[in-house]
Amino acid sequence: MKQLILVRHGESEWNKLNLFTGWTDVDLTEAGRHEAFEAGKLLKTEGFRPQLCFTSYLKRAVRTLNQILEAMDMDYLPVEKSWRLNEKSYGAIQGLNKADTAKKYGDEQVLLWRRSFDVQPPALDLHDERSPRMDPRYAELSDAEIPLTESLKDTIARLLPYYNGAILPSFQSHDTVMVVAHGNSLRGIVKELRQMSNDEIIKFNIPTAVPYIFQFSDDMKLEKHYFLGDQEEIRKKMERVANQAKKK
Amino acid sequence: MKQLILVRHGESEWNKLNLFTGWTDVDLTEAGRHEAFEAGKLLKTEGFRPQLCFTSYLKRAVRTLNQILEAMDMDYLPVEKSWRLNEKSYGAIQGLNKADTAKKYGDEQVLLWRRSFDVQPPALDLHDERSPRMDPRYAELSDAEIPLTESLKDTIARLLPYYNGAILPSFQSHDTVMVVAHGNSLRGIVKELRQMSNDEIIKFNIPTAVPYIFQFSDDMKLEKHYFLGDQEEIRKKMERVANQAKKK
Repeated sequence: MKQLILVRHGESEWNKLNLFTGWTDVDLTEAGRHEAFEAGKLLKTEGFRPQLCFTSYLKRAVRTLNQILEAMDMDYLPVEKSWRLNEKSYGAIQGLNKADTAKKYGDEQVLLWRRSFDVQPPALDLHDERSPRMDPRYAELSDAEIPLTESLKDTIARLLPYYNGAILPSFQSHDTVMVVAHGNSLRGIVKELRQMSNDEIIKFNIPTAVPYIFQFSDDMKLEKHYFLGDQEEIRKKMERVANQAKKK
Repeated sequence: MKQLILVRHGESEWNKLNLFTGWTDVDLTEAGRHEAFEAGKLLKTEGFRPQLCFTSYLKRAVRTLNQILEAMDMDYLPVEKSWRLNEKSYGAIQGLNKADTAKKYGDEQVLLWRRSFDVQPPALDLHDERSPRMDPRYAELSDAEIPLTESLKDTIARLLPYYNGAILPSFQSHDTVMVVAHGNSLRGIVKELRQMSNDEIIKFNIPTAVPYIFQFSDDMKLEKHYFLGDQEEIRKKMERVANQAKKK
């Protein structure tokens, strides 16, 4: 049996402030750290023993993973980080308040930027101070790879080479692998695994800091998938995430 | 210019309890986390920008590194973990109180176990519950590699293949590299870099959570080495470490 554990990072500072975050590198809130630690305790209690972890270049994901590993007492696990697991870039609206942006561009336009499959928000300039080109951690990326804005389709397109080239192949030498990332990069993995349509994945909300377990046969046929934990609690959490998406 | 930053982990729970620790996987104290975070703040203020980090399989080192990276806002850095950077194994006296052990075996014997270059403490049984063989994280090690006890000489012998095979070669593609590890594994690196004698390295005490900077020319000739921070504070810290070694 093989298992893939997906975890979306805990609540971040900008979730709370209702700002577009994307590639902005904001920290977890105290509540976010706490829910991450709880996710780790649950994984430990339920007997999950990952052998390898993947996460993004963004601290809200790395710190969520650190909290999980602390709670599991598995700090020694190897961790691979990739920009390809980063959140969808929101381009030039990163750092803007969601309500202000809706006032400026109209509700309908903002909804398209947030919840369509292939509409991109306005792009950053390559030399905008918010551009990844200005950040040394992304020095390895070519200008063509630097996302100045992304639709969900774009996010999935740059995620897939890493999913197919690093995450999936790791099951050749490991039984249990954990990925701690973001709402939209995880959507890419879930869409692939569950063969969801574009419409289905847009409507699918992944709750924060809830381990999402994919169980495979030894030859990597998907056998089942489920969120780990109290199902009523998880349902409420998914509703909150869906409502937050509607919140101005 | 190339730079190697060495950091010894912050104060651990068992430092405080005066127990032999070795490969026992004990956590940092609050003070230990704090001094680690402060070391990260100092490195950031002084403009150090490592591109790659190495640490051990023991949580007091991993968590020290996590604190440093949080303080530097560099959580995205790649981190490689190796058992070869672990602390010296204290074998069968791991978990024993230092004072009780001195009473049982005599002061002189305990001093030899702690401060000689090549005397090993009594060995663990391979199937002792404290043996690394019983811990899944060390499953990759052959029985011959599993340390059931170690002298400093043994610790250095198993460290060097990693130092020469992974840490030094990383300077081919990086300018600044950071190693967060333990008193005795770091002694191995310092002995190598400064070409110290066995007697010299035994007497050399590395203070906890003080960045120890080695600066090289581009062709890796050692140009200088120094502890980063207030030199008077560091002198006091080194004295405390030396005195703790004497403390029963």
